[in-house]
Amino acid sequence: MNMIYDVIIIGSGPAGLSAAIYAKRAELNLVVIEKAGLSGGQVINTYEVDNYPGTPGISGFDLSMKFREHCDKLETTFITGEVKDFRLEGDIKVIVLDDNTEYRTKTVVISTGGVPRHLDVEGEKKLSGMGVSYCATCDGAFFKNKVTAVVGGGDVAVEDAIFLARICKQVYVIHRRDQFRASKSISTRLMALDNVTILWDSVVERINGEDAVESIDVLNKKTNEKTNIELSGVFIAVGYHPNSEVYKNVVETDEGGYIIAGENCETNVPGVFAAGDVRTKELRQIITAASDGANAITAVEKYLNNL
Amino acid sequence: MNMIYDVIIIGSGPAGLSAAIYAKRAELNLVVIEKAGLSGGQVINTYEVDNYPGTPGISGFDLSMKFREHCDKLETTFITGEVKDFRLEGDIKVIVLDDNTEYRTKTVVISTGGVPRHLDVEGEKKLSGMGVSYCATCDGAFFKNKVTAVVGGGDVAVEDAIFLARICKQVYVIHRRDQFRASKSISTRLMALDNVTILWDSVVERINGEDAVESIDVLNKKTNEKTNIELSGVFIAVGYHPNSEVYKNVVETDEGGYIIAGENCETNVPGVFAAGDVRTKELRQIITAASDGANAITAVEKYLNNL
Repeated sequence: MNMIYDVIIIGSGPAGLSAAIYAKRAELNLVVIEKAGLSGGQVINTYEVDNYPGTPGISGFDLSMKFREHCDKLETTFITGEVKDFRLEGDIKVIVLDDNTEYRTKTVVISTGGVPRHLDVEGEKKLSGMGVSYCATCDGAFFKNKVTAVVGGGDVAVEDAIFLARICKQVYVIHRRDQFRASKSISTRLMALDNVTILWDSVVERINGEDAVESIDVLNKKTNEKTNIELSGVFIAVGYHPNSEVYKNVVETDEGGYIIAGENCETNVPGVFAAGDVRTKELRQIITAASDGANAITAVEKYLNNL
Repeated sequence: MNMIYDVIIIGSGPAGLSAAIYAKRAELNLVVIEKAGLSGGQVINTYEVDNYPGTPGISGFDLSMKFREHCDKLETTFITGEVKDFRLEGDIKVIVLDDNTEYRTKTVVISTGGVPRHLDVEGEKKLSGMGVSYCATCDGAFFKNKVTAVVGGGDVAVEDAIFLARICKQVYVIHRRDQFRASKSISTRLMALDNVTILWDSVVERINGEDAVESIDVLNKKTNEKTNIELSGVFIAVGYHPNSEVYKNVVETDEGGYIIAGENCETNVPGVFAAGDVRTKELRQIITAASDGANAITAVEKYLNNL
């Protein structure tokens, strides 16, 4: 327990695994801490990934394994455990796992990702990846000329709906309020599209289908009218929850809980870096997370060089 | 010629090809313009790429082909031609090729990359990829416990040497002046390392070897002393030349010629985006370039949504 690492990487999604690849190749002294005994993060449960350049149409599981094998080839050490506490002792960062083991390190890359908020309605979980998606940029192209729905009313939901309207035959937007929270310019643009139908004051009550989404039951909360809409895809855009709780006392987060860090992944605390979905950024994708891993290690090296 | 594209992507390295993947999947109306009739940019001539997460130990050619096949699967249109002029006509961007054909588009992604500056000494070109490298982050790990040299004296050269000193048995730093241009803190750190030897006032005159680097001839310009150093790797860090000439009259560049753009790839001109090595950024790698492609198209979509 006296060992002080150069860097500890927390989380083994694309950001963490990419950071591990860069750190191992730089001969830094490191470990990766992962919650489950399985690497890949959110990707592992993704049915098909078609936008990681170079590997079209791969399953999320297979892509995760490719990342992990890359790390294994470089003899990366993985530790399974959940981080329950994180604190600073001068320049040293201390990580405490749920079994009370402590790790000390000069730098940390927090790449703990996050989870999309769910609707928590019947059929949602069962059909996730089979028509239910939380990422239009990732999965929209699978629904060419089909009918889809977007659930939500913020910027992401409205942008997703505009995006899907170019790809799909028909797009329903289901929003629980009577106006969008999204900016006026894009809301106006969305409402002008021919193949978009907006259902205000409405919520999805159930997602139906056996092996794939077949329809949704929608309730208008003002009129109590119920509608069944036949469609192939439901894009849920009601928010995202970054896994940053344990770190909030140490590093700055924004109102959404994202750790505030730019492209170089530096947080407000020297030697603490945030990479991937957990940090403030525009686009949360496998490729942008993997890029963060590389940038974070470059920043780690600069920090170590100046210690 | 009356067609106005949603986006034209200039350059077919990792940034351009990734942008094409994201743009095609978003059903944007686009073409990719590439100078040579071969995609991949600088990567195509890279002997081995070991740091693109998910594909350890792949040849640059094969990785380039994987990126290109991904684009082909999405039916991306490629045009071969060199851009000789770029101008704005109101909101429309006009691209003129060397055969005088003109393309009009609402947005442009400039992903034209760059080239590392060469020493232009005997053996350099022949042994490129066979021990001569322009990227320590990319290739350093191939020289574990070997003897290498870094040529240069700026921040990149000094950081490269510190990086290599962790990996290699011995690192020579060859610099033509009697002090580094690099910051004092990292220069001091480098000079304190046991396995680093600095040769001041010196230049590499020749790189020797048949199928791999075997030694270099070094001249001390003050004493006129010549030395032959046996080693396996020569890392040349004497600058980088971004391919931005054609665009400089339209978009802002920095003193090094890089197009000024942050993580979202926005330049000072609305609708013109810069992705990959050609833009101002910390780390120029395949993974960061590919990430830029995704971010640039996201910014393109936002721009188009607000037109």
